[in-house]
Amino acid sequence: MISDKMKAFVNSSSAIRAMFEEGKRLAEIYGAENVYDFSLGNPSVEPPSEIKEALIEVLNEENPNMVHGYMNNSGYEDVREKIALSLNKRFDTNFGLENIIMTVGAAGGLNVILKSLLNPGDEVITFAPFFGEYRNYVSNYDGHLVIVPPNCETFQPDLEEFEKSITAKTKAVIINSPNNPTGVVYSEDTICKLAKILNRKQQEYNKSIYLISDEPYRELVYDDLEVPYLTKYYDNTIVGYSYSKSLSLPGERIGYLVIPGEVDIYEDLVAAANVATRILGFVNAPSLIQRAVAKCLEAKVDVEIYNRNRELLYNNLVSYGYECVKPQGAFYLFVKALEQDDKKFAQEAKKHNILIVPGSAFGCPGYVRIAYCVDYEMIKRALPGFEKLAKEYGR
Amino acid sequence: MISDKMKAFVNSSSAIRAMFEEGKRLAEIYGAENVYDFSLGNPSVEPPSEIKEALIEVLNEENPNMVHGYMNNSGYEDVREKIALSLNKRFDTNFGLENIIMTVGAAGGLNVILKSLLNPGDEVITFAPFFGEYRNYVSNYDGHLVIVPPNCETFQPDLEEFEKSITAKTKAVIINSPNNPTGVVYSEDTICKLAKILNRKQQEYNKSIYLISDEPYRELVYDDLEVPYLTKYYDNTIVGYSYSKSLSLPGERIGYLVIPGEVDIYEDLVAAANVATRILGFVNAPSLIQRAVAKCLEAKVDVEIYNRNRELLYNNLVSYGYECVKPQGAFYLFVKALEQDDKKFAQEAKKHNILIVPGSAFGCPGYVRIAYCVDYEMIKRALPGFEKLAKEYGR
Repeated sequence: MISDKMKAFVNSSSAIRAMFEEGKRLAEIYGAENVYDFSLGNPSVEPPSEIKEALIEVLNEENPNMVHGYMNNSGYEDVREKIALSLNKRFDTNFGLENIIMTVGAAGGLNVILKSLLNPGDEVITFAPFFGEYRNYVSNYDGHLVIVPPNCETFQPDLEEFEKSITAKTKAVIINSPNNPTGVVYSEDTICKLAKILNRKQQEYNKSIYLISDEPYRELVYDDLEVPYLTKYYDNTIVGYSYSKSLSLPGERIGYLVIPGEVDIYEDLVAAANVATRILGFVNAPSLIQRAVAKCLEAKVDVEIYNRNRELLYNNLVSYGYECVKPQGAFYLFVKALEQDDKKFAQEAKKHNILIVPGSAFGCPGYVRIAYCVDYEMIKRALPGFEKLAKEYGR
Repeated sequence: MISDKMKAFVNSSSAIRAMFEEGKRLAEIYGAENVYDFSLGNPSVEPPSEIKEALIEVLNEENPNMVHGYMNNSGYEDVREKIALSLNKRFDTNFGLENIIMTVGAAGGLNVILKSLLNPGDEVITFAPFFGEYRNYVSNYDGHLVIVPPNCETFQPDLEEFEKSITAKTKAVIINSPNNPTGVVYSEDTICKLAKILNRKQQEYNKSIYLISDEPYRELVYDDLEVPYLTKYYDNTIVGYSYSKSLSLPGERIGYLVIPGEVDIYEDLVAAANVATRILGFVNAPSLIQRAVAKCLEAKVDVEIYNRNRELLYNNLVSYGYECVKPQGAFYLFVKALEQDDKKFAQEAKKHNILIVPGSAFGCPGYVRIAYCVDYEMIKRALPGFEKLAKEYGR
């Protein structure tokens, strides 16, 4: 009696619940400190102290009816202006407040932009491995997600396959760099080639194809790597950003969309995104936290903490015989499973109280995702289990 | 190139924008204090001081990774537990945390429940006049909104017409009491009769019909009126609540759904609502404000301020010859336009710098909505304009 579309979800969500319950069961048997949960992308590093200070400052100094009240569906104008200027400073772009729409996290932003763009049957391309929710977001608007198979050598997008996957029905492409689940950052060379293909295909089909850059991990990069800002490489680019990871605020649901003036349907798209924000029930991004993040645009979490986790886990896993592309960003390792069946491998890991997510969940079977946004000491405690697991597979 | 569904919205949203621009233009010509904007339902009364105290207490005393972090898609368990207990105390209900799902305001909650319930072509009934967004929320999931014509004598629902409007395709009924735009509270007698009809029709069609009670105005009632709690009258009831008006927090996007154990698909519906919260991109209701409202469940805005506005505006308008059912709740007057064409009448009002919304926007032409969630002094300044307007129409 629930909707047909939701029935399948409810069945699979009970599988996830079962996994969660299993984790709780293990913790009860072995003690919470002896269960190693690497399954969740929930930031472990504290929000920067500026956030608390900014929140209290807003509460003490600004008019409460303004701070907690309705504003334009796009968000406070002064907040959007500050974000635009900060982007311009960092990336040498040319945005104004009219290019920024505050959203309920990146998830809200992606839904808003897909609702704005998609007709039933439209195709949206993404690259495996990918954040599994893309499938659901596209399906919400009766679009069809087309998946480009992975290049497992580098986990850079396979551009030859990409070009083949573009059809007259292609409306948008979603990319995610730094990537969940691989931690790979798409290189400038990759982006240039991708833009070239898109431009060529736009001409070939005489239609627009929108590049949606999902960037919740933009600030989490290591070794001083630069992440190219995509609007500079391809005109029909829309950016979806979130403060969930950069400021460790995932529960607050705060992010924004950038719709540059270069987008060929700029005016209609901004108007549509406004309406979509309203009618999807977001109405606006939460107000107090909008005002607070605008005061913290230079702040970010201490990435060095994630970096230490990355080095510890990566170096040890490789020394045990695991294969993995060293992540350049985000807080995930995407490790080759030691047997073909990644789900079975995740089950084997669980025997060592190690909880990891099969790569199938990201459209890339044969791998597992290990989230290292966890306590450093937990990683240390888990290492012997990873080593034993490798030995069981003859490494 | 934006989606077909959005094209119509963008056209009509530019009409709204034009109205907004017109207000700004008037303010520039005549001065902001000489323009009387009664068009918006944005609470004018300050949030109770407990809210600020609670926010600061949470920030100072609770772990920031917990306060700003992900939790279950349904919200924090302790928050949901407190809300359930508070409802039980007030309404003699029997809810637990498992009946409460925190939502991104009532708008988010309605979208979640409609996504969970509707198949394409399903019918959802509501009573004119109604909050215009219902049409969009239902259309988001390819449902069809069926409108029961108004009873303009009392603005209680017309139950005879209601019964006739129920078909084999009816999946849900949305009611909104205290009502936007009329301010009318549906009486216990009305609710009992409505429940009886629904039960009879469930049997007749051998299918379930869900009653969705949209209750953002529950706490804004006058003259010590009791608003019946609907889950006690009809088993298949789902409540959508919001703190937007009761605590003057509309920008924070915080509310909840109540799914009672008596709902015949309780387990599936809770599971579906969880998934819908996630895949629609809400993920969860904003976290800090969840924790804060849980500390303020006894607090509410000073309703007496709205009551003073109500008395001032109602008594004077009636004395000028306007016709209006005296509102028992919310902060709107729904006044009979002094000519048949409500849009034209609203234009005439604008000549006196009075901004009001035509009833057509609420499925009830021939009336206008006057929102009195405004400054008392502004009402006083606007009264001569209302009087002149009445005189122009020969009152």
